[in-house]
Amino acid sequence: MATQAGRLSASDHYDIVIVGAGPVGLMLSTCLARWGYKIKHIDNRAEPTATGRADGIQPRSLDLLRNMGLKSAIMAHKPARVYEVAFWDPPKGGKGIVRTGTWASCPSFIDARYPFTTLLHQGMIERVFIADLEKNGVQVQRPWTITGFTSDEKADPEFPVTVQLEHVDGTARETIHAKYLFGGEGARSFIRDQLKIGIRHKDPIAYVWGVMDGVVKTDFPDIKMKCTIHSEHGSIMVIPREDNMVRLYIQIASSTDADFDPRKTATQEEVQESAKRILNPYSIEWERVEWYSVYPIGQGISDKYTLDHRVFLGGDACHTHSPKAGQGMNTAFLDAQNLAWKIHAVESGFAKRSLLETYEPERKNVAETLLDFDNRYAKLFSQRPNAASDAQAASTSSSGPEDNEFIKAFKEACEFTSGYGVLYKENELNWSPAHPAQSHVVHPAGTKLRTGRLLINADVTRVVDANVVHVEQEVPLNGAFRLFVFAGKPSVTTQALKDLATNMGRKGSFYSSYTRPDVDSVSHHEHDLPHSKFFTVCTIVAAQRSAVEISELPPLLARYREHVYADDRWDRHVPDATAAAHAKMGLDQERGGVVVVRPDGYVGIVVALTEGTATVDALNQYFGSFCTKKLGEPHAQL
Amino acid sequence: MATQAGRLSASDHYDIVIVGAGPVGLMLSTCLARWGYKIKHIDNRAEPTATGRADGIQPRSLDLLRNMGLKSAIMAHKPARVYEVAFWDPPKGGKGIVRTGTWASCPSFIDARYPFTTLLHQGMIERVFIADLEKNGVQVQRPWTITGFTSDEKADPEFPVTVQLEHVDGTARETIHAKYLFGGEGARSFIRDQLKIGIRHKDPIAYVWGVMDGVVKTDFPDIKMKCTIHSEHGSIMVIPREDNMVRLYIQIASSTDADFDPRKTATQEEVQESAKRILNPYSIEWERVEWYSVYPIGQGISDKYTLDHRVFLGGDACHTHSPKAGQGMNTAFLDAQNLAWKIHAVESGFAKRSLLETYEPERKNVAETLLDFDNRYAKLFSQRPNAASDAQAASTSSSGPEDNEFIKAFKEACEFTSGYGVLYKENELNWSPAHPAQSHVVHPAGTKLRTGRLLINADVTRVVDANVVHVEQEVPLNGAFRLFVFAGKPSVTTQALKDLATNMGRKGSFYSSYTRPDVDSVSHHEHDLPHSKFFTVCTIVAAQRSAVEISELPPLLARYREHVYADDRWDRHVPDATAAAHAKMGLDQERGGVVVVRPDGYVGIVVALTEGTATVDALNQYFGSFCTKKLGEPHAQL
Repeated sequence: MATQAGRLSASDHYDIVIVGAGPVGLMLSTCLARWGYKIKHIDNRAEPTATGRADGIQPRSLDLLRNMGLKSAIMAHKPARVYEVAFWDPPKGGKGIVRTGTWASCPSFIDARYPFTTLLHQGMIERVFIADLEKNGVQVQRPWTITGFTSDEKADPEFPVTVQLEHVDGTARETIHAKYLFGGEGARSFIRDQLKIGIRHKDPIAYVWGVMDGVVKTDFPDIKMKCTIHSEHGSIMVIPREDNMVRLYIQIASSTDADFDPRKTATQEEVQESAKRILNPYSIEWERVEWYSVYPIGQGISDKYTLDHRVFLGGDACHTHSPKAGQGMNTAFLDAQNLAWKIHAVESGFAKRSLLETYEPERKNVAETLLDFDNRYAKLFSQRPNAASDAQAASTSSSGPEDNEFIKAFKEACEFTSGYGVLYKENELNWSPAHPAQSHVVHPAGTKLRTGRLLINADVTRVVDANVVHVEQEVPLNGAFRLFVFAGKPSVTTQALKDLATNMGRKGSFYSSYTRPDVDSVSHHEHDLPHSKFFTVCTIVAAQRSAVEISELPPLLARYREHVYADDRWDRHVPDATAAAHAKMGLDQERGGVVVVRPDGYVGIVVALTEGTATVDALNQYFGSFCTKKLGEPHAQL
Repeated sequence: MATQAGRLSASDHYDIVIVGAGPVGLMLSTCLARWGYKIKHIDNRAEPTATGRADGIQPRSLDLLRNMGLKSAIMAHKPARVYEVAFWDPPKGGKGIVRTGTWASCPSFIDARYPFTTLLHQGMIERVFIADLEKNGVQVQRPWTITGFTSDEKADPEFPVTVQLEHVDGTARETIHAKYLFGGEGARSFIRDQLKIGIRHKDPIAYVWGVMDGVVKTDFPDIKMKCTIHSEHGSIMVIPREDNMVRLYIQIASSTDADFDPRKTATQEEVQESAKRILNPYSIEWERVEWYSVYPIGQGISDKYTLDHRVFLGGDACHTHSPKAGQGMNTAFLDAQNLAWKIHAVESGFAKRSLLETYEPERKNVAETLLDFDNRYAKLFSQRPNAASDAQAASTSSSGPEDNEFIKAFKEACEFTSGYGVLYKENELNWSPAHPAQSHVVHPAGTKLRTGRLLINADVTRVVDANVVHVEQEVPLNGAFRLFVFAGKPSVTTQALKDLATNMGRKGSFYSSYTRPDVDSVSHHEHDLPHSKFFTVCTIVAAQRSAVEISELPPLLARYREHVYADDRWDRHVPDATAAAHAKMGLDQERGGVVVVRPDGYVGIVVALTEGTATVDALNQYFGSFCTKKLGEPHAQL
C-alpha cells in the first residue's frame, strides 16, 4: 500500500497534490484519503463556498454519495427535490405565459432509486466532504495556491512531480514532491495553462447569464418546481432551493444577438425587473437576495486531461458549459471517482500503470456527450419559442409527435441528465468482442447488462440478517472490484459454485494472485476485503432467504458472509420472475452468471457460471489484460 | 401561548418540571420545548446512559421519530435492523439446537413504512433528543434529584405545583413553582411513591435476567438476527446491535423454580458458560463485553398515572415487564407524546382541562395490553419447549395449525409489538356512536379508518413541487390537529369544498374560533399553521398532479399550499384504484371525505364531505365536546 513506501514519511513527500477544493478535488481527495493515501490538498479560497455556484445533485450522483455513506449528511440539510420540470410559454395569440406541459425530471423508464434532482448549496456539499476528509486526517490547506510544477519520471521515478505552493498573501512557500498532481481548479486552471493544453469550443455561441439566489414572494404556481419559461420578454429558468430559496437563471446576452457584447452586464435590479416582465401575469417580489452574479460562458472542452499520466485535470478545468442542465458538479464527481480508483489500482500494485491511460478517453467522451447535449438544450432554451407549436404541446405528459422540439430534446436527454446515460466505451476494462478475453462463456446470451454501464438496480435479502437491501449499493466505494456471483438455483449450480471457488483459490488466479499479505490476521469482522484488497465477492442465490445456509456455500464465498443474498424480492419490472434480480440482469434464473463490476460501479464483464475452469479462465483473461501479474495457466493446472 | 403568561418570566416559575431524562422524559421535554414551553428538566445521573438499558425502536416509533425530524439522526449511528426472528429448539430426539422456523418481525400484513426493529444503544438515542432540546434552549440539569413536592390548585390556580430539587451531592437546592410535574424516573419512582400510588402485579411470576452486550466470535449462523433459543440447558435471546455488538438475554431464575431466590445472581463468566452450553453445537467466544447486568423483574402496572392531573407519571414508572419484546422505550415514547399534546391543547386555551383526564385511561389500557402480551410471551419463553411439537413447526413460514404455541403467540403479537396495534378506546377524542357528535354524515359507510387508531399509510404527490410523499408524515408533530380533506373528484366536489371552506371560515366554527391572534402578520412561508395554531389542513385531490391547480381551490384550503396533494400514486394494496389513498382509507374516490387526525396521529373522527353545512356542523360537534368555546350555531347562521 501507498503509505508503506519509505519516502512518504518525509514531510515534503506526498502521494498526490490536489489543487482546488470544489466538487472534483474533494471527491478525489475523499476517496484517496479513505484508501490510505497521503494527500496535500490546497485551495486558494479562505473558506468553502459561501454562496452561489453549483447546487444540483443528479439521481446517479446521489447513488454514488450513498455508496460513500455521505448521502444522509447531504439530506440532513433538507435540500429541495425536483421531481418534475414545468414548461411555460406564451399562450397562442395571447399575452403573458401559460404552462404548456410538465415532465418528470427522471421518468420512470429510468429505474432510479432516487428519481429526483437534489438542490443544495455547494458550500454545504463541500462541508460534508471536508468533514469526511478530516476524519481521515486530511485538512484542506487554505488559502494557498500553486505557483509552479515540474514532472520528470526519469529524474525521480517514484515521486516525479515537484510542486511549488504558496500562501495567497505570499508569506509562506512549500515545495512538495509527489507521485501525482491533480488540477481541480475550475475553468481558469493554472495547471492546464502551464501544460499548454488548449480549450476547444464546440459551440461557437457564447452567452451571458445572470443568476440570482433569493427568497421571493410570488403567486407563480410553479415556484417550487424546476421551470423553463419563455416569454416575449425573454427567458428564465427557475430552480427551487433549500430554505425557501429559489434560483433564477436569466439570459442577458447571446452571441447571436445583433449587438452582442460578452462584457454586457446587468444590475440586480435590472434582472429583477426583467424577471417581473417575463413572469407577468404573475407577480414576484424579493424578500432577500443571497447571491447575484453575471458571467459569460461558452462551451469548452480541454484537448487533454493529462500529458504524462502524472499530472491530471478534471471538473470545470476540462469542460465548461451552460448551467441549464445542472450537470457541472455531477460530471466533476464522476471525473474524480474514475481517476481515484485507477490511481489506487496502480499505486497498490494491482494494475499496470497503463490503466491510467483510460481516464482521459472515458471521461472526455462523457464531456463531449454533455456538451453535445448542452449545445442543443441551450440553443433551444435561448431561442424564443414558436408560440403556436408550443401551445400544441400543452397538457401532454407522454412522449408523442405533438411535442415541440424543446420538450422532445428534454425528454431524450433525461437519461443523460439523470446520470444513468453514462456509457464508457470498450477498452481493457469494459469488455467487447475485441477484448483479449476470448471465451465462449463471456457475455452469455440474454444478459441485459452492458459493459461500461452501471449495474442494474435490484433488491435482494441479505441472508445473515434478513435485511432487504439494494444489491448495487452493498459494496461500499472501497476501491475494490465487485464480483457478483449470481448463483442461480442451488440444486443446479452446486458443482459450478464449487469449481468457481476452487479455481479462484488456485495459485495464479486473478483472485489469489492478489491476496492480502496480512490475510491470516484479518479480523473476522472484516466484511468486504477479508482475502484481497482488490475484490469484494457477493453471492446472490435464487432461493428464499430461509432456504439459504451460508455454511453450505464453498468456504471462499461463505467468508463474505455479510455479502450472501437471497434473490427473493418481488420486482414490478419483472413481475413474473421467481428470482427478480437474476431476471433484471438478464441472467438465467437457474444457472446464474458472474458479473464483474468495476470499483466505480460500471460493469466490466459478464461471464456464464459453468462447471469446470471456463468461468475463472475467462476472468483470468479479463483481469490479465490490465493486471501487473501474469494470471492463470488453466491447462497446466487442470 | 404558555410563554406569554406573566409569572413565567420569574426564574423559579416553569410550565413543567420533568424528572428523569430517559426516553419518556426526553420525549415529553422535546415536544413541549418545541411548542414554546418553559421547562425545568432534571436527571440524577451525571451523564446520559453510557451503556446498556433499552435499545429497541419499533416500526411505529420510527414513524414517530421521523415525524419529529429525528429519524435521520438516529439512523446516522448505523443501528442494526431486525427484519426476522429465528426460533431455535432442540431437534426431535437429538442433542443441541436446530432452527425450527423464522418469522418476519413486522410481517407484510402490517402496512409499515419501516418493517423492522431498529437496535441502538439508548444513550445514542437520548443524545439525539438532548441535541434537539438544546436547540430550543433546554438543558437537562444534572445530577439533580427531586426531594419533595406539593400540588395545591386552591393555593395557586396557575402554578399549583411546588417542587424541591437538590443536587445529588446536597450542595445546592432549588424550589420551583410549576403548572405540572412529570415523573419519568423509571421503575423506582420517587414521585409515584410520594403519591402513594400502588403497583399491581398482573403476573405473580418474577424472573431474574442476565443481560450482556458484547462483541463475539461465533459460528452460530443467526447471530445477526433476533433469536429465541430454547435448549435442554436453558433459554437465551439474541439481539443484534450496532458496531458488531450482540445482546444476549439469559434467564437466570424464575419464581416457578423450586428453589427460586429473587436475589439469585450469576457472574459474567457463569452466564458466558451457560450461553456456550445453550448454543452447542455452535461455538461462541467473547472478544469484548461492553455491559453486563443481572436484574430481577416482575410485571407491574401502577394503579394511577396521576392523582390530580397536575402531577403525572409515565414510562417505566407506570409499567414494568420483561425485556423480551423490546417494548419499554416505545411505550415510554407514546406515553409522553400522548401527554405532551394534551398539555399543549389545555395550556394554549384550546381544550378544556378535562382533556387531561384522557391520558391515564388511554395509556393505561395500552400498558395492560402490553403486560397481557408480555405475560403470555415470557411464560412461553421461559418454559422449556416440547421438542416434539416444536419440530413440527420447523420450516413453516406462514401461519398454520402446525405452529407451536410459542410461534403462534408471537405471530399474533406482531401487530402489537410493531406498535401498530395500539388502539385508544372511545372517548371525546375518539368518536364512537356514544359521542356527542351525532350526525348522519359521521363515519360514512365504507371507511376503513378506525377512530383511536393510526391514520392508514398512503403515498401521494405534493402538488406544489411534485414530490412523492407519505401523506401520514406530511404534518410534523406540531401539536395541531390534522384535518385531511380527501377532496374526491374535483368535478363532483366543487360545491362541497366551497361549502366546507365557507363554513370553516364562519364565526363560531371549530376552525375560526381559534384563529391565531397574529394571523395578519404570519409569513407567507408558514406552511403548517398560517391561520390557527390548532389545525393544519391537508387537501388530497383525486386527480393527476398536473391537473390540480391550487388556485382553483377555496382560498382557505389553498392557503395551505404545501399541503395540497394529488392522489395519483399506484399502490400495491389497492392495485385497481384510480385514487389509491382515498381507496386505502375506504373513502369514496369521487366524493371524498374529511378525516380528523389527533396531533399524535390517531384518527379522531371521519366525516362525509357534503354540500351544505352538515360536514362542518359535525366537526363543530366533535370539537365542541372538548374545546373551551361553544362552537357553531349552524341553523342561525345559514
